[in-house]
Amino acid sequence: MVFWGPENRQVVRNRIFERTGMEDRPVYLDYNATTPVDPEVVDAMMPWFRERFGNPSSGHFFGWEAQEQVEAARTEMAVLIGAKADEIVFTGSATEANNLAILGSTRAMRGEKRSLVTSVVEHPSVLQPFLRRKEEGWRLILLPVDSFGRVDLREAESIIGKDTALVSVMLANNETGTIQPVREIAGIAHSCGALFHVDAAQAIGKIPVDVEALGADLLTLAGHKFYAPKGIGVLYVREGTSLSPLMSGAGHERGLRPGTENVPYIAALGTAARLVRENLREESARIQRLRERLHGTLSAAIDGLRLNGPSNDRLPNTLNLSFPHVKGWELLAAVPGIAASTGSACHWGIHKASPVLLAMQRDETRALGAVRLSLGRFTDEAEVDFAASALISTWHRLSS
Amino acid sequence: MVFWGPENRQVVRNRIFERTGMEDRPVYLDYNATTPVDPEVVDAMMPWFRERFGNPSSGHFFGWEAQEQVEAARTEMAVLIGAKADEIVFTGSATEANNLAILGSTRAMRGEKRSLVTSVVEHPSVLQPFLRRKEEGWRLILLPVDSFGRVDLREAESIIGKDTALVSVMLANNETGTIQPVREIAGIAHSCGALFHVDAAQAIGKIPVDVEALGADLLTLAGHKFYAPKGIGVLYVREGTSLSPLMSGAGHERGLRPGTENVPYIAALGTAARLVRENLREESARIQRLRERLHGTLSAAIDGLRLNGPSNDRLPNTLNLSFPHVKGWELLAAVPGIAASTGSACHWGIHKASPVLLAMQRDETRALGAVRLSLGRFTDEAEVDFAASALISTWHRLSS
Repeated sequence: MVFWGPENRQVVRNRIFERTGMEDRPVYLDYNATTPVDPEVVDAMMPWFRERFGNPSSGHFFGWEAQEQVEAARTEMAVLIGAKADEIVFTGSATEANNLAILGSTRAMRGEKRSLVTSVVEHPSVLQPFLRRKEEGWRLILLPVDSFGRVDLREAESIIGKDTALVSVMLANNETGTIQPVREIAGIAHSCGALFHVDAAQAIGKIPVDVEALGADLLTLAGHKFYAPKGIGVLYVREGTSLSPLMSGAGHERGLRPGTENVPYIAALGTAARLVRENLREESARIQRLRERLHGTLSAAIDGLRLNGPSNDRLPNTLNLSFPHVKGWELLAAVPGIAASTGSACHWGIHKASPVLLAMQRDETRALGAVRLSLGRFTDEAEVDFAASALISTWHRLSS
Repeated sequence: MVFWGPENRQVVRNRIFERTGMEDRPVYLDYNATTPVDPEVVDAMMPWFRERFGNPSSGHFFGWEAQEQVEAARTEMAVLIGAKADEIVFTGSATEANNLAILGSTRAMRGEKRSLVTSVVEHPSVLQPFLRRKEEGWRLILLPVDSFGRVDLREAESIIGKDTALVSVMLANNETGTIQPVREIAGIAHSCGALFHVDAAQAIGKIPVDVEALGADLLTLAGHKFYAPKGIGVLYVREGTSLSPLMSGAGHERGLRPGTENVPYIAALGTAARLVRENLREESARIQRLRERLHGTLSAAIDGLRLNGPSNDRLPNTLNLSFPHVKGWELLAAVPGIAASTGSACHWGIHKASPVLLAMQRDETRALGAVRLSLGRFTDEAEVDFAASALISTWHRLSS
C-alpha cells in the first residue's frame, strides 16, 4: 500500500515535473471536490476586504454599502434558483446548510410524525444529522438505489408514508454524477404531508436548479462547487417552512443563522450565481463534449473499462470509470500529473471501496477499480488529451 | 426620530462630501464593530482562491498544499494564544465558536452539575445559547457588574459553586472596552470543578490573549476583529475538554466542525495572528496615544462629558463617552463624516439605551447619550483631530 504521507509528497512533486513536461502542477480533473474561484468572482469580492469593509449591521455609511451588497447578492442567488430573496439564507458551508435543514426542521416540528427518509448515497453531512436524530428516537429509513445509483421510485412510494416528517434526496451524486428523480420524490413526499429537502451542492452550476421545478421546501448549495470560495453555503427555505436555528446570537439572516455576514463571500456568491445564469447551457455543453472525448479515447484503448452511473441523467462533467485489473488509487498514484480522486474514502493511505458504488450493487473489485474524473470551467482539450494518454499508458504498464 | 432607511442614504452620502471636504468616505472610528482586512493579510489569502484552490481533503497535489497551509495557519494561531496547534478549531464565526463552546460542552456533559454562570454584559452569541439551555431545564445565573462594567469577584465567589458546570465571561467588553478579571474568575470556576469559557473576540489584537495566563478551557476569537475577514472564527479547546459538535458530517477539524475548510480565510487568520504577535505592543501603545488625544480634546471642550468604563483595565482603542444634553444617535446622525456607533441596538431607526450601560447602573439619560469611538490600526492623527473637531462643533450646535 502506498502511504501518501508528507515525506512522500516532495518525491511525488518531483515526479510530476519529470513525467508531465507540462506546467508545475497536475492537470486538475477533480472539479467535483472543489473548483477554483472564477477571476470575475475574485474581482467582485476584492473591494469588500479593504475599502468597503463595513459590518452590515452598522448604522453608518460603511454598514449601508455592505448591507446593500448582501441584499443584491441574495437577489442574484434567488433569481438563479427561482426563489424569492428572503427565502435565501447564507451559511458557512453546504454542510451547515444540510445540518440546518435536517436538524432545524425536525427540531421545529410539533406534530406526531416520527419517520425520516433519505437515500443510501447521500453525503455524510446529510446522513450524519439524520443518524443523530435516529439516536434521539426518530425512525430513519434509507432509500435503496439501482445499479445506476438512482433511487427507485416504487421503493420510495412504498417507504414514504403518513408517518414521514422529512424526506431528503440529493439532486446529483458527487461520485457518479447520477441525477435523481427529485421532482417525482417531492410529489410522493408532499402527498404524504412530508417536508422535502434537496442537497443540490453538487448539481449547482452543472445543471439547472429550480426550486419550483424540483418541488423543494429546503435546498442546499455550496459556493465552492460553482466557482465561489470554500466557506460559504446557501440554504433555500420555502416561505412558511418552520426552522429552528442551529446557533443562537444576534438576529442575522432572519434569526436563522446568526453571525456577522461574510460580505466578501456573499458578494462572490452573487457573481458566481450570475455567471451560472448567463453561461450554464453553453458551458455544460462544452464540458460534456470534452468529457465524451475523454471517455471515448479511454474506451477505445482499454478493454473492459466500465462506466459507473447512467449514460444519460448524469452531470455533464462527471466520468466515474472502473478500470479493469488495477485499483483506482494505484492507477492515480502512478499518474501524478493528473489530480483526480477514486471517489472512495482515500485519506492518507486508507483505501476502501466507495460506499456509493457498493450501494449500486457493484462488486468490490469493480468498486476498487473506480476513478472519478470531473471536468470544469477551465478544463481544455489539451488537458483532456494529456490525461487520456497518461491514463492509458500507465494502465497498460500496471495491468500487464 | 431620524429614519435611516435606504431613501435617506444618498442624502447622507451627499452631506458627507459637503461637510467633510475630506475623501469620499467617513472617518472610520468603529473598529470594534469590524476591521478592514490588513493588506498583508489580503496578500496571504489571494493565492488560495485561484492557483492553489485545492480541497485539503483531496489526496493529490492540490489537496496537499492546501492542507499544509491550513496546518501552518493553525500553528500560527496557536502560538499567538499560547496553545497547541491541535487545540485550535476553525469555525465560520465567533458566534459559531461561542455556540460550539456553550452548547457543545453542555451537551457532552454526563455529570450531575446543572448550573450555568455568565455575566450580564456578554454578547448575544454567548447569552442566547445559555438561554437555550435554560429553556431546556438548566439553571442559569447572571453575574452582575459594577459601575465600570466589571464582574464583582465577591459576587462570583458566592454564585459559582459545586453545582456549576460551566462559567463564561468575556475578556473585554465590546461597548466599553472593560477588561474583566478573567484569571481570577477562572480560579473560582476551576476550584468548583466547572469548565471555563472566555469570549476573547473583542480582546484579540488589542491586548495579550494567552490561554494559560487566563486559565481558559475554551476561548473564542473572531477573525474580523483583528484584520482578517468576516466569516471565520476560532474556538480554542483545551486538550481533554469534552465537546459535542453542533453539526455532523465528514470528520473535518477532528470531528468538531465538519465542512470543507475555508483555506483562504484560514491562511488569512494565520497571517493576521502573526501580525498581532509581531506588532501588538507597539501598535496598542500608538492607538492608545491617539485615543487619549481624542479624549483630551473632547473633554477640554465639552463640560460634563463622561467616560463609560474604567480609566485603566480597558482596551487601548475604546472610548465610550456619554455626551451631555444630547442623544448619542442624534449626535452621530448630525456628523455623517464620522462612522461610529452608539453602542446601543441601533438598527434602522430603533434607538434603545444600551443594556450594557444600564447593567452598569448608569441612568437611562446617560446611557442614551453614549457614543462609542473605537480606533484601530489605520487610524491616524488627522482622523482623530477631524473627529474631535466635528463632534465638538456639532455637539455645541445640538445642545444649545
